[in-house]
Amino acid sequence: MYPRFPDAGERKQMMMKKQENDMSKADIGLIGLAVMGQNLVLNMNDNGYAVAVYNRTSGKTEDFINGPAQDRPEIFPAYELEEFVSMLKRPRRVMLMVKAGEVVDKFIQALLPHLENGDIIIDGGNSHFPDSNRRTRELEEKGILFIGTGVSGGEEGARRGPSIMPGGNEHAWRWVKPIFQDISAKTSDGEACCEWVGDAGSGHYVKMVHNGIEYGDMQLITEAYQLMKEGLGMNHDQLHETFARWNQGPLDSYLIEITRDIMAFRDENGEPLVEKILDTAGQKGTGKWTGISALELGVPVTLIGEAVFSRTLSALKDERVRASEKLSGPDSRFNGDAKQFVDDLEQALLFAKIISYTQGFMLMREAAEENGWKLNYGSIALMWRGGCIIRSAFLGKIKDAYDANPGLPSLLMDDYFRDVVTRTQGALRRVLAQAIQLGIPVPTLSTALAFFDGYRSVRLPANLLQAQRDYFGAHTYERVDRARGEFFHTNWTGSGGNVSSGTYDA
Amino acid sequence: MYPRFPDAGERKQMMMKKQENDMSKADIGLIGLAVMGQNLVLNMNDNGYAVAVYNRTSGKTEDFINGPAQDRPEIFPAYELEEFVSMLKRPRRVMLMVKAGEVVDKFIQALLPHLENGDIIIDGGNSHFPDSNRRTRELEEKGILFIGTGVSGGEEGARRGPSIMPGGNEHAWRWVKPIFQDISAKTSDGEACCEWVGDAGSGHYVKMVHNGIEYGDMQLITEAYQLMKEGLGMNHDQLHETFARWNQGPLDSYLIEITRDIMAFRDENGEPLVEKILDTAGQKGTGKWTGISALELGVPVTLIGEAVFSRTLSALKDERVRASEKLSGPDSRFNGDAKQFVDDLEQALLFAKIISYTQGFMLMREAAEENGWKLNYGSIALMWRGGCIIRSAFLGKIKDAYDANPGLPSLLMDDYFRDVVTRTQGALRRVLAQAIQLGIPVPTLSTALAFFDGYRSVRLPANLLQAQRDYFGAHTYERVDRARGEFFHTNWTGSGGNVSSGTYDA
Repeated sequence: MYPRFPDAGERKQMMMKKQENDMSKADIGLIGLAVMGQNLVLNMNDNGYAVAVYNRTSGKTEDFINGPAQDRPEIFPAYELEEFVSMLKRPRRVMLMVKAGEVVDKFIQALLPHLENGDIIIDGGNSHFPDSNRRTRELEEKGILFIGTGVSGGEEGARRGPSIMPGGNEHAWRWVKPIFQDISAKTSDGEACCEWVGDAGSGHYVKMVHNGIEYGDMQLITEAYQLMKEGLGMNHDQLHETFARWNQGPLDSYLIEITRDIMAFRDENGEPLVEKILDTAGQKGTGKWTGISALELGVPVTLIGEAVFSRTLSALKDERVRASEKLSGPDSRFNGDAKQFVDDLEQALLFAKIISYTQGFMLMREAAEENGWKLNYGSIALMWRGGCIIRSAFLGKIKDAYDANPGLPSLLMDDYFRDVVTRTQGALRRVLAQAIQLGIPVPTLSTALAFFDGYRSVRLPANLLQAQRDYFGAHTYERVDRARGEFFHTNWTGSGGNVSSGTYDA
Repeated sequence: MYPRFPDAGERKQMMMKKQENDMSKADIGLIGLAVMGQNLVLNMNDNGYAVAVYNRTSGKTEDFINGPAQDRPEIFPAYELEEFVSMLKRPRRVMLMVKAGEVVDKFIQALLPHLENGDIIIDGGNSHFPDSNRRTRELEEKGILFIGTGVSGGEEGARRGPSIMPGGNEHAWRWVKPIFQDISAKTSDGEACCEWVGDAGSGHYVKMVHNGIEYGDMQLITEAYQLMKEGLGMNHDQLHETFARWNQGPLDSYLIEITRDIMAFRDENGEPLVEKILDTAGQKGTGKWTGISALELGVPVTLIGEAVFSRTLSALKDERVRASEKLSGPDSRFNGDAKQFVDDLEQALLFAKIISYTQGFMLMREAAEENGWKLNYGSIALMWRGGCIIRSAFLGKIKDAYDANPGLPSLLMDDYFRDVVTRTQGALRRVLAQAIQLGIPVPTLSTALAFFDGYRSVRLPANLLQAQRDYFGAHTYERVDRARGEFFHTNWTGSGGNVSSGTYDA
């Protein structure tokens, strides 16, 4: 281990000595020692890997080396990038756990002079997939192999086994696979929750959709919590017991589990801490990106969309407080069979969750088509099965569905999921009717049903919409009794021209 | 008028003659003779303006000159851009009605060599506002004044009086104002539905939101149609009568009016044409852009979001047909008081429409703040009051609300709108309960209520969401009993570190 803050001369000397003796012995190097980075390093080291570490501010490196990494001789600190790179076995594997955006590009630029053909740069941050598309391409031109990988599981996951979703330059995969699969979460069958996702930005895309689904799952749980607390007047012991029971059933998942624990958590006054927390949700962009991608690709990912918007509405706290003084609603007292309602709610959550995953997988399918990625949906479900925030028993069923039929057009067309939604829809309908009556907002539960009822409609009222568009804008329409691709225009008013708009054309 | 297809030599001669005699007599020039462009030219000419016209393909110019523009000596065709520009009075006003995107930039580039300091380029297409931001800036550097303007009203509107929403370089406004206000729609009070919107891309932004709101209004109407047709089993005469009646009340609007007419429109077999139209909705991007902008700015514009997603779901026709064979729902027969239901539906539509406009104006307010635009919301409502697709009696009330209180935080805080939503919410709740029971999808009606119930909530369940985020990601939270901006982290599990994530930081 280095002495505290060796000066530049000392460091240079050490580095040269290292190089002379071919001291390049680290299996991988990691840049960025915030909590996620630190925990990944410890996890790698637990699995027998030697890791070089670097952080822009050297104090953080010192703190890590003298703190969590003490007594770990195979974690090597570096205080200059050149030194850091010199510690790495070839081909060099450098993993960035830094803030997404410009910082990633800056580190890549700083690393490039020290790397050589065939070296590998891995970006493990929450980068936006178009950036990973670009970086894969740009680095390939320089002979450097890029991997953009999603890493999910929060700090606990990073430490004990995250879900890892790598994509990028496939030539890099065999060099990274053993490390990633060793450190990743394992399913109960011992399968690693890490597989190659696909080309270019596909790893970060899949991670983005994962996060979007996480937004949806969380919002669904909060709606259930609100209904039970405000509607039924349940106390936190009852809430705790309910989430504990749900965690034994088909909703078994990490998010239900931590909600169970959160309900039981009391502050120093013995009061539920959750009630002291301000109801304004933050966000870091990945849910928003998922919604934007859905809009751009034209895929109805309504549940994530509503979940993202719900966070933005929660953030308008002051405006809501003022609005609450002016806008009244119905009496929110529940007059029914509370036990039945809670059971219905469990079914309703399951239903809505199936819808959300259906939409998320529809989105990935469209993105794959758009970008020319070959995605294996069964292995994506497997990657999410353990380690990550949305891990659940449920994902095993999704894996089964896609393994049985890799070309499945949507989860709702799988027999298992079809049976579940068919069976649970009644419960959701009852829950929604109650929520509407009580005046408790349930945007994601509502949109789940609207999607389901729309998806199973042979006929939607978009015919009227097309008539309107043709009426005012001569946008033309297709007919039910004619082949697709034949377009018609009607002169609805009897006046005006028969010119169809096509669009402005000069 | 020119002979048909004068050759290049003849044209050159004519042009030179024109220049010699200072023949520059057109008040404005318009490029792009698709239906919108043609109709704007005729409208300008009706209002006494001399207009030079140009189209990339000269055949279209010929057809226009020999067709709709015949016997109009003050519409001058040009077959070269140089010739076209030479026909214009100074400062030259050139309006582009061409396909949004690259085509606009190409025409701007082609025009520039022929223009001089202080000349004006107006883009009247459906351009994306960031492009108009850029063009305003780039052209300003070259001494050219740019206006990006929304023009709404479809072909009829363009011909008889559209709603016009100009933004960009304000120095151009006085040169364009008389023409635009003359050709624009007028309210019943004689006010022009055209006012200066604001700097840079604000005109196109307001037009974009207009179109997003149009998506919402249309989707709401189709949901009502579906409920009445599928749920109540109403025939097209009854539908026609209902929309006719609604058009006499608070829903009085162009879209209800044309829906009334569409319901009455029979094909050559005497059958309602609307039922022959395929139920797959098209879109041209402005609704999508509105949704994306809402996500980017963090404004809960849920109704437009759901409307856009509904169009994308409708487009999955084949998938829906297959799904309909596997996924069953409840019996969609209605057993209630049909008349009461239709009356409720009218109230429900009014309620949902208020929510949608509330959200749209919230979005414009946020965009104005983000971009440093000064928007006058009363005059925006006025511009939409007539001429455009969403024109309605209702917009007069919005104008009143913002005129009375320009700083109104949201429409729901205006006494008039507060009273209407308070009064009509019961009807919407009853309609939703029925729709849910019947299995008829009502995504926009549903989200309207979810927004309302969320907006008037002092307390949303986002506290649980923040607890979850802090639990798994150390994202920290604020407290109800502490000042905003103070962030707390709890070690929920008793294990793991106390390091808050901040975010990856290197």
